[in-house]
Amino acid sequence: MSAGKTGAGLPRGFACAAAHCGIRKKRSDLGIIVAERGVSAAGIFTKNRVKAAPVLVTREHLRASRGRARAIVVNSGNANCSTGAAGMAASRATARAMARELGCAEREILVCSTGVIGLPLDAGLITSVLPSLVAARAGAAESFEAFSGAIMTTDTRPKRSFARCRLGGKTVRIAGCAKGAGMIHPQMATMLAFLTTDAAVPPALLSRLLRRVAERTFNAISVDGDTSTNDTVLLLASGDSGAALRSGTAETEKFAQALERVCADLALQIVADGEGATHVAEIEVRGAPSHRAARRVAETIATSPLVKTALAGADPNWGRILAAAGRAGVPFDPDRVRVWMAGRLVCRRGTPVPFDEADLHRRLLEPKFSLAIDLGAGRGSARMWTCDITAEYVRINASYRT
Amino acid sequence: MSAGKTGAGLPRGFACAAAHCGIRKKRSDLGIIVAERGVSAAGIFTKNRVKAAPVLVTREHLRASRGRARAIVVNSGNANCSTGAAGMAASRATARAMARELGCAEREILVCSTGVIGLPLDAGLITSVLPSLVAARAGAAESFEAFSGAIMTTDTRPKRSFARCRLGGKTVRIAGCAKGAGMIHPQMATMLAFLTTDAAVPPALLSRLLRRVAERTFNAISVDGDTSTNDTVLLLASGDSGAALRSGTAETEKFAQALERVCADLALQIVADGEGATHVAEIEVRGAPSHRAARRVAETIATSPLVKTALAGADPNWGRILAAAGRAGVPFDPDRVRVWMAGRLVCRRGTPVPFDEADLHRRLLEPKFSLAIDLGAGRGSARMWTCDITAEYVRINASYRT
Repeated sequence: MSAGKTGAGLPRGFACAAAHCGIRKKRSDLGIIVAERGVSAAGIFTKNRVKAAPVLVTREHLRASRGRARAIVVNSGNANCSTGAAGMAASRATARAMARELGCAEREILVCSTGVIGLPLDAGLITSVLPSLVAARAGAAESFEAFSGAIMTTDTRPKRSFARCRLGGKTVRIAGCAKGAGMIHPQMATMLAFLTTDAAVPPALLSRLLRRVAERTFNAISVDGDTSTNDTVLLLASGDSGAALRSGTAETEKFAQALERVCADLALQIVADGEGATHVAEIEVRGAPSHRAARRVAETIATSPLVKTALAGADPNWGRILAAAGRAGVPFDPDRVRVWMAGRLVCRRGTPVPFDEADLHRRLLEPKFSLAIDLGAGRGSARMWTCDITAEYVRINASYRT
Repeated sequence: MSAGKTGAGLPRGFACAAAHCGIRKKRSDLGIIVAERGVSAAGIFTKNRVKAAPVLVTREHLRASRGRARAIVVNSGNANCSTGAAGMAASRATARAMARELGCAEREILVCSTGVIGLPLDAGLITSVLPSLVAARAGAAESFEAFSGAIMTTDTRPKRSFARCRLGGKTVRIAGCAKGAGMIHPQMATMLAFLTTDAAVPPALLSRLLRRVAERTFNAISVDGDTSTNDTVLLLASGDSGAALRSGTAETEKFAQALERVCADLALQIVADGEGATHVAEIEVRGAPSHRAARRVAETIATSPLVKTALAGADPNWGRILAAAGRAGVPFDPDRVRVWMAGRLVCRRGTPVPFDEADLHRRLLEPKFSLAIDLGAGRGSARMWTCDITAEYVRINASYRT
């Protein structure tokens, strides 16, 4: 089993392409992933009450097709959100045009959008380019790279990850790419992730695996605590490797672990590329009354502006971690708490432990480090990743729209 | 009835003093409010699980005395939090020394601290100055002003407010002062507010009135969503005006309104002086399924980094308000939503309403404006105040501790 940014090869049965269709001024703004025949598909979507049209359409299609799909069409530059009936029509027109190109049912096409909110999306820009895009699709690494570039918004770099594992004597491949940046900002960002594998996985199992893995990866990162109207993760499984997965087997567990490595790698790339971010902190909460309580404490620490600004300053200000934990609504006795920063114990029984401030400051200048807290109140644990909040984050998000 | 920063006079029966006792290098760091005899007292405290020693001691004293007090002692420069048994001993020693000076019971002394967390507090610095401070106390406006200055930390200005009303033919006065800045940051800030009145109010009624008013004022503001370990609001009532309040009367309602004006004025001064803040936004949520749901939506908008950075840029980015409302966990139909910024309707039925962007941008450059959202899902409403998040906020909070 391996996971990384290159070298594991692409899953068989898929082809990609990308182009500039005119939603943005110059940059590539349209990408497709095509399965050469109908494949298993699973998706998870934003929990925001305000859902963009493509989220509504894609969710509806996955239900109607009972987890089968032929292709994904993604545009950047326009989120197609808060666009009313015209927005729904634009997403449906995109899916219909793509289905016509591939000769499949409309419900087998999944659509995603990311970009500015509240502006009408001209589906004609997309549909006029689809025929040439479908003709140009290829299974080559370059096509996958072009796709991963077309979905970027305020991202400073594309995010890709690959894994390979041996299942029942066959080599199974997993590929993923994502876009993030603000997590999430409804004007110009959203988290989108697209995963493909050539394992054969029944739709119901695929959906369960995706949900479980996402909970520990994409749903365990925070850039700013905001949630996009467009967040979508899609996973397609072609079966072309010849390895078939069944529920509850050791093989499936092995596959889930490989999938988790890809998703965790993408999630960390998203946090590291958070708007203005200069540091990634892994937050570990232990000794909570339950896993759920641990998660709540981890989320409160991960989204605390005071913790995140302290990280920007590489300030060993553990009092802010303790204070954030204290307001998470989880019962614990402060006198039993221990806190570590970058591996150094800085607080025990709720009181300070002497430490070398200059040394710890240096450790907090590293691009990645851990923050850990043991509440001494049970066996619940949780892990999350967050980034610092910098003046650059404010600059990016305060700039008047242009 | 009137409320404002000057001119209403101070309630009778109280005296103040302030001094430099040596916790900070130079600035005034110790203040007292003394009631000339035992008075009714009520307090509300941080809900953070991690509570500073003075919070624990003051809460215990108010319970033991059944809402009677003689004096308040406040130090700045050290929060006396995460200081273990030594911290509890320091707060008790402060109360004991003050009780000795005034010849009253220790439980009649209320203590507060604000400043750095996790550093031992040398109570000797406080107790050695108390005799001269008690001797120097006075009912003059200058003494109240000195007290309001001694409690400041990262505040750029003191916060004071006064009100007067006629009750049963008598003139009743209310005075208040507060400190805030970060809301709340455990290193150098905390919200503390001290209120005095010369109305005669039984302790149980005083406590109910304070809770009700604080919910609509001090608990309706957000600078950064963090909650201090030391937050405290104390209200003392001397009765020296001769006006006695009873539960459920029109007079008590009139008093509650005057108290709310003072508290709202102080709360708004705190938001306006939020670390790095340049704008104050009044957030109004209407049409929610319940008041509680409305409050949850208001809180989510008030603490959204994306909303707060848009405010810093005077950006009419209503999509961020809508998206924040959508992730508050409150059910509503996005197609029924309306959003106003600075009084201009910008979104109706969840879709954009054309507006003059340059004009709205100018309105958002004002120091104070409103953001309103109607969810179209019921009759629940809530109001909160927040400030923008600026690069200066990050600078203040990211600076390595010195």
